[in-house]
Amino acid sequence: MLTPTPLAPVSVLGLGLMGTALATAMLKAGHPTTVWNRTPSKTGPLTAQGAQPADTPAEAAKASPLVITCLTTYDDVTEVLRPLTGTLAGRTLVNVTNGTPAQARAMAARAEEHGIAYVDGGIMAIPQMIATPAAYVLYSGDESAYEEHRPTLAAFGGTRWTGADPGLAALYDLSLLTGMYGLIAGVVQSYALIGSERIPAREFAPLLHDWLNAMTDAMVPNTAEALDTDHHLTTVSSLAANQAAFPNLLDTFSGQGVRPDLFEPMRHLLDRAITEGHAHDGLSRLVKLLADR
Amino acid sequence: MLTPTPLAPVSVLGLGLMGTALATAMLKAGHPTTVWNRTPSKTGPLTAQGAQPADTPAEAAKASPLVITCLTTYDDVTEVLRPLTGTLAGRTLVNVTNGTPAQARAMAARAEEHGIAYVDGGIMAIPQMIATPAAYVLYSGDESAYEEHRPTLAAFGGTRWTGADPGLAALYDLSLLTGMYGLIAGVVQSYALIGSERIPAREFAPLLHDWLNAMTDAMVPNTAEALDTDHHLTTVSSLAANQAAFPNLLDTFSGQGVRPDLFEPMRHLLDRAITEGHAHDGLSRLVKLLADR
Repeated sequence: MLTPTPLAPVSVLGLGLMGTALATAMLKAGHPTTVWNRTPSKTGPLTAQGAQPADTPAEAAKASPLVITCLTTYDDVTEVLRPLTGTLAGRTLVNVTNGTPAQARAMAARAEEHGIAYVDGGIMAIPQMIATPAAYVLYSGDESAYEEHRPTLAAFGGTRWTGADPGLAALYDLSLLTGMYGLIAGVVQSYALIGSERIPAREFAPLLHDWLNAMTDAMVPNTAEALDTDHHLTTVSSLAANQAAFPNLLDTFSGQGVRPDLFEPMRHLLDRAITEGHAHDGLSRLVKLLADR
Repeated sequence: MLTPTPLAPVSVLGLGLMGTALATAMLKAGHPTTVWNRTPSKTGPLTAQGAQPADTPAEAAKASPLVITCLTTYDDVTEVLRPLTGTLAGRTLVNVTNGTPAQARAMAARAEEHGIAYVDGGIMAIPQMIATPAAYVLYSGDESAYEEHRPTLAAFGGTRWTGADPGLAALYDLSLLTGMYGLIAGVVQSYALIGSERIPAREFAPLLHDWLNAMTDAMVPNTAEALDTDHHLTTVSSLAANQAAFPNLLDTFSGQGVRPDLFEPMRHLLDRAITEGHAHDGLSRLVKLLADR
């Protein structure tokens, strides 16, 4: 008779929408899963699926060599873990709480003081996407702990190692979110403009979708190439041409009764680029102008 | 012996980078092409390819039933065409100069007074893309004139009719450019952030590319659906969750020495959305908040 290899146990602390999705993914993958939440009622749906509820964070930590924290802020993580640093010593802490690179580095330093292997994680998915092929998590920090637990972490979706600097997962994560928020600003402003003439959004959506994907395909690799080679001159779309076109855009917003606020800073940045002598450069020059130092 | 059907003659006024690309496309497609430019030297490369140079705009207009203007501004178009309204009567004017919906409507009204069939065009391509499958032009205005000349206009790439209101091509064009400028803001800020730790841009580019395309795929149709059904509640990513995450992002910009200017207005918009009671709504609510009226 074949005995299946028992899967590694895992503990999940913090059962908001994301923590619940993570614990669910572990249960579905067959890992013995212990869960804890400050408000114990949130453990109900998970225990119904086979999770072991813990009364305290220490009890949860004792149950598994791999402890995952998914709380609201890094301050919450610090507060919840403070009483159990002794329990965590020798275990791996994977912290997927949203935070900054600086917060991740400080957390890693404290973990190291207490003999805790620290891996920071940045989840590139909404809760509904966890355990689907579209989801992945960025990791950084203690590479050997990461490699040891990678088969378990794969229950969430793809795994991407970003480096030993524990701040890197957060940096990559926030850089991707940054790109997304620019896209959001563009999409909402675009729909506001087309909506000013009562054109149905669904009629315009396919054009907007295809256009944005085409621009992403062209712009993202080209800008990277220009940045890495430090070669900013362009024959395609100069900052001068963009600066010349921009007032037209802002005038149209005003003329159509759409607030221009989201786009005012881009006008200032283009103006500054021209004033500082970069008329013939492409978009990569703007990246340099955004660096304060 | 087979005699090929002679192709319709066309005249192009304005030979900047885009006008030159348009005239070149017409020549390559086999149309007898007459060209005019304020600075006559620009006609040289085109006459070498078989174009007929015209000494005056009127001479160019006389040569073809289809006259295409591609100048810097609508004021330039008005100035160039003022002396030849009589010549243009009974012909079709396709104006692809960049402008606003209001400018296009005013131009169409003047054209109608003089018996000129007016079609406004918005080119969704850079000059290098003209006559490739990726290029297309949006048109609006006189639909029968458009249909008559569509086989000729197809030399530029795809043709997309937006409606009889002559301002629509400009509105669609500017709405797509609006989306693109948001995307540009996101991409340059994202590269600035990842560059703050000297990570090569080409290492990050594939992640950014795939992430932005995935977000476009999800966000563009979902937002359109929410807008057209006027149903803004979301279970995916609430404005409250976005507002909570945003200060983290701005703090990271500052901490990494990257100017936050481009993203400040989005913070204000999210704050306003929460203050006005839209915490549980999704991004489509922001579109409504951008409408001034």
